[in-house]
Amino acid sequence: MFKTAIVPRVSETDGAGHINNTVVPIWFEAGRRGIFRILTPDLAFERWRIALVNMNVDYLAQIYLDKTAQVRTWVENIGIKSFSLYEELWQDEQLCSKGTVTYVYFDYKSNKSKLIPDDIKNALQQHALDTEK
Amino acid sequence: MFKTAIVPRVSETDGAGHINNTVVPIWFEAGRRGIFRILTPDLAFERWRIALVNMNVDYLAQIYLDKTAQVRTWVENIGIKSFSLYEELWQDEQLCSKGTVTYVYFDYKSNKSKLIPDDIKNALQQHALDTEK
Amino acid sequence: MFKTAIVPRVSETDGAGHINNTVVPIWFEAGRRGIFRILTPDLAFERWRIALVNMNVDYLAQIYLDKTAQVRTWVENIGIKSFSLYEELWQDEQLCSKGTVTYVYFDYKSNKSKLIPDDIKNALQQHALDTEK
Amino acid sequence: MFKTAIVPRVSETDGAGHINNTVVPIWFEAGRRGIFRILTPDLAFERWRIALVNMNVDYLAQIYLDKTAQVRTWVENIGIKSFSLYEELWQDEQLCSKGTVTYVYFDYKSNKSKLIPDDIKNALQQHALDTEK
Repeated sequence: MFKTAIVPRVSETDGAGHINNTVVPIWFEAGRRGIFRILTPDLAFERWRIALVNMNVDYLAQIYLDKTAQVRTWVENIGIKSFSLYEELWQDEQLCSKGTVTYVYFDYKSNKSKLIPDDIKNALQQHALDTEK
Repeated sequence: MFKTAIVPRVSETDGAGHINNTVVPIWFEAGRRGIFRILTPDLAFERWRIALVNMNVDYLAQIYLDKTAQVRTWVENIGIKSFSLYEELWQDEQLCSKGTVTYVYFDYKSNKSKLIPDDIKNALQQHALDTEK
Repeated sequence: MFKTAIVPRVSETDGAGHINNTVVPIWFEAGRRGIFRILTPDLAFERWRIALVNMNVDYLAQIYLDKTAQVRTWVENIGIKSFSLYEELWQDEQLCSKGTVTYVYFDYKSNKSKLIPDDIKNALQQHALDTEK
Repeated sequence: MFKTAIVPRVSETDGAGHINNTVVPIWFEAGRRGIFRILTPDLAFERWRIALVNMNVDYLAQIYLDKTAQVRTWVENIGIKSFSLYEELWQDEQLCSKGTVTYVYFDYKSNKSKLIPDDIKNALQQHALDTEK
């Protein structure tokens, strides 16, 4: 599991006074930096290996500007050509959002999905939900 | 159905050269302006009536900076205390993303969900997916 | 002069109830699409020709979610290797923000500034502030 | 001086492969959290005390996704009704951006500027550029 501290920004609030709903996917993506490094160690876009195919987010409680939040990121499932993550957003010991994303392993030059290599599968497996929970 | 034209911004691209995944929820929210006006005609936050509980997005094709996009927004389902929308993002006659969101009708003062009034239900029904498709 | 209509988004407001200050530079950049097309007609990043060196923004009046805004973009000055733009943000017949940006004509491969070609200078000149005002 | 660590996000890059220009003002605002706490200790928007009147940013070097950045924030000048900050963005021991912002001390209810109270002036003075440099 990867833990990522997030300090909420004024620019991320909205007129209702809380963190805007569209910010949660941005924070969840920020929490995937460790996952991205497994796939592209130097984070260089010319070696980017994955494409997002689905995102699902449950909004459970409001998120406030005043307190640091934390994103927790697990690998939920590893398939032949795709994998999914499970993500949680915590603030003040409350689970505020949770969700899943599915990425396909992808060759941007040929514009096609590809088999996930075994070394990548093994590295992802170190962060698997069932290993840890 | 509401149609909303979106001109992609340089700031909405990412290093992979396309529109970043986290921008699609932002555009879909932009496409809900007509829905928001049904609930809060002057868009004043002190009279905001809904809270998001779930968002699901399928990413089907890459979105480019060069061409105008269009968000299409339908009411998918109207319940007792909540309703859901179905949303599509089109660019260059291609469906690039589609998704659903569920909002609960909400009283921000008491922090509780409420029954959707009949006049709101009727106004939402004018934009229902089954009425139009 | 380029005019760009901007429909404010809920995600662009902040907890003070207005459009957040950091959104104005985003809207001003959105207003430069016509300028970007002069330099890179297909907006392809591998042919991007300019780099920002300075941005200055005056905030004159609050900007609201409820009404469409308009960005107006002029070329203020054209130099040997750089040019500057003058930009205004209007809402409801009120000037809400104004500013300038300076871009250097730039070769991203050699990482060096370059002379602006005459045809680009002429195309920029069509949108000059002194020509129009 | 306040130091704020910033981990760049994929969503903050643009198609040119670096951090987009419009993100620097967002990071600089993030770096003002300590300043905002002097004015509004609980960061509650109903007690927000300042309004931005000018922002100026110099862009000196490109900012990359791969490495953590740092915002440094000083109080540059304290006036009767307004104050200015001086801000720097560092990455990998290089100064990438610097800028100033001017805020007016403001009463959002009467929509008027106000005198800065002495205790606020004293607290701001602890972070003054001339005290530290």
